[in-house]
Amino acid sequence: MDRRSFITKAGFAGAGAVAASTLAAPAIAQGNQTWRMVTTWPKNFPGLGVGAQRLADRITASSGGRLTIQLYAAGELVPPLQALDAVIEGSAEMSHGAAYYWQNKSTGLSFFTGVPYGMTSRELTAWVRHLGGQEIWDEIYDQFGVQGFLSGDTGTQAGGWFRNELTGVSDVQGLRFRTPGLGGQVWEKLGASVTNMAAGEIFQALQSGTLDAAEFVGPYNDLALGFYQIAKNYYFPSFIEPGLATELVVDKAKFQELPADLQEIVKGCCAAEYDNVAADFAANDPRALQTLVNDHGVQVRQFPDEILEAGANAAKEIMQGLLDSSDALTKKTAESFVSALNIVRQKTEGTDSLFIQAREKYFQL
Amino acid sequence: MDRRSFITKAGFAGAGAVAASTLAAPAIAQGNQTWRMVTTWPKNFPGLGVGAQRLADRITASSGGRLTIQLYAAGELVPPLQALDAVIEGSAEMSHGAAYYWQNKSTGLSFFTGVPYGMTSRELTAWVRHLGGQEIWDEIYDQFGVQGFLSGDTGTQAGGWFRNELTGVSDVQGLRFRTPGLGGQVWEKLGASVTNMAAGEIFQALQSGTLDAAEFVGPYNDLALGFYQIAKNYYFPSFIEPGLATELVVDKAKFQELPADLQEIVKGCCAAEYDNVAADFAANDPRALQTLVNDHGVQVRQFPDEILEAGANAAKEIMQGLLDSSDALTKKTAESFVSALNIVRQKTEGTDSLFIQAREKYFQL
Repeated sequence: MDRRSFITKAGFAGAGAVAASTLAAPAIAQGNQTWRMVTTWPKNFPGLGVGAQRLADRITASSGGRLTIQLYAAGELVPPLQALDAVIEGSAEMSHGAAYYWQNKSTGLSFFTGVPYGMTSRELTAWVRHLGGQEIWDEIYDQFGVQGFLSGDTGTQAGGWFRNELTGVSDVQGLRFRTPGLGGQVWEKLGASVTNMAAGEIFQALQSGTLDAAEFVGPYNDLALGFYQIAKNYYFPSFIEPGLATELVVDKAKFQELPADLQEIVKGCCAAEYDNVAADFAANDPRALQTLVNDHGVQVRQFPDEILEAGANAAKEIMQGLLDSSDALTKKTAESFVSALNIVRQKTEGTDSLFIQAREKYFQL
Repeated sequence: MDRRSFITKAGFAGAGAVAASTLAAPAIAQGNQTWRMVTTWPKNFPGLGVGAQRLADRITASSGGRLTIQLYAAGELVPPLQALDAVIEGSAEMSHGAAYYWQNKSTGLSFFTGVPYGMTSRELTAWVRHLGGQEIWDEIYDQFGVQGFLSGDTGTQAGGWFRNELTGVSDVQGLRFRTPGLGGQVWEKLGASVTNMAAGEIFQALQSGTLDAAEFVGPYNDLALGFYQIAKNYYFPSFIEPGLATELVVDKAKFQELPADLQEIVKGCCAAEYDNVAADFAANDPRALQTLVNDHGVQVRQFPDEILEAGANAAKEIMQGLLDSSDALTKKTAESFVSALNIVRQKTEGTDSLFIQAREKYFQL
């Protein structure tokens, strides 16, 4: 702990108590701050929006109200894709979203959300916390006067909703598919005609025939959007989003002015929610999928090997492009990511995966 | 936040500031508490002991020193396997260890560490935080006046060190194998002659020929113990420890007397370390394994299918015994665990595992 900031903080409370001994609560309130957390999620959006609210409440409670977080759902204060700019420009102190939304500011940011054929959620914290990822992330965000902390993860997502069954890469040719970001680039390389559109527009586009297929998140989020009414083939797994990590971005100067204990609380609460959000998806994705299958006649399918392989080749080309980037920070991020992936995958593939396969094969209860 | 405890806490700081306006730091210290955290881990034990220290430091820093945690490594205050009793008897406020060490107090406690062919680390938080596990755990520990929080996880462990290669179940007959707990019961059912002994005694027993094989944790912890000098065959994965979760146990009455913000900090810091410890293992197990292979000639091997299958059958018998337990709480814990496992495994096996297998097969960088 930083002793100087501890004493400064103590001074706040002490001064308040002296001035108004019979009015302890309002006096203490002088030392309190309220910060605005803008988010990219709709209010009560399963997993992610709920996780952002829980993070806000956790910081407020852990700080005894000294740092009270007021959450604004997407559009309440600023449109969702202006959340980071709101922090940079000072109209909010925090934003909760996904780093890859800002890849137009710095391509390397994609790595802190998830990239095609990249890291699972646990592998990502191994990189960010133990293999140098956070330091590179800080270097990127330093350019904008902000800092990012991992704050949640969906786990491996669903591959998408398809009107027709996919038997191989030939079925992908010309397929009008809603899928954003680097994942969209992978599907484009496979021959799809890729478009992006907001979540609220997907259902209508599927219904009208403008789209043949769409991917969004996974069962927990997709269930409410009704895609199953049009496209009955639900493919697993997503090979373009092996995890989607959320971030909490803070105004770095304001963050560093906080007493050391409050800085520690913000960081700790983000880390606590990282696993908790992923655990929420682990518990609730399967239950939503059961509803989709049992009540709505959804067909759960796996991508044919030919598509998995072609997708991997496309993802390798994209990764090579990032490794060869003329932007030094993007290149550095890609190199650190690949180096870390080549370490962490040894345990995921050589230990975790072997256990899961053995359990699936031999241990039915 | 509990408003009453917030004001009470503020009162502490205020009174101190009034009494000693020029001596802010010592005055504030009147509101501070120091709690003793006994642990079951040696000092600086990779992953787990280091994680306990980081948890202690995190609580101290997040509370601005109001709750300062003094850590005692195994044996410093009490022997490792008396850590829980120390909290129950009041000679420590907290213990950091693994719930299955106390299965003699209540068999159901094993489930909150890990059981043969049971949950992976992420599945465990899905159960504990989102599918009713914490409430049952609280019910068990309420009998002893304590409360447990998940505080770390090793991820899936290594299967063990074997002097000779294993070609099938016949090679297990009479094998003198060091492996404790329910996992030991599994190996006994497979025909091994199972013994338990402290970590520090294993090397000598292997060297003298008292043991043919031993399992401890995984590469990150095993490297330093030198087993590779005697037993060169290192098997993966552990099917008896798909994860080993650590716990922080607190004296429940003292915990409930803490102001609401400090209670929240303790809970949040445990949740933050849960993923962080697992991420540490994810980053460092592979690097330790590389050292074992490259510098010490260790052979990495996978268990033959026959052993994986026989192990699963043995684990099923043990699980059935717990489901049929005459102890109501053990039965209730087992039923909740199995019900949750049958939910969460759908995503682990039907999504996560498929992605990892596809990446392993098609995405080499």
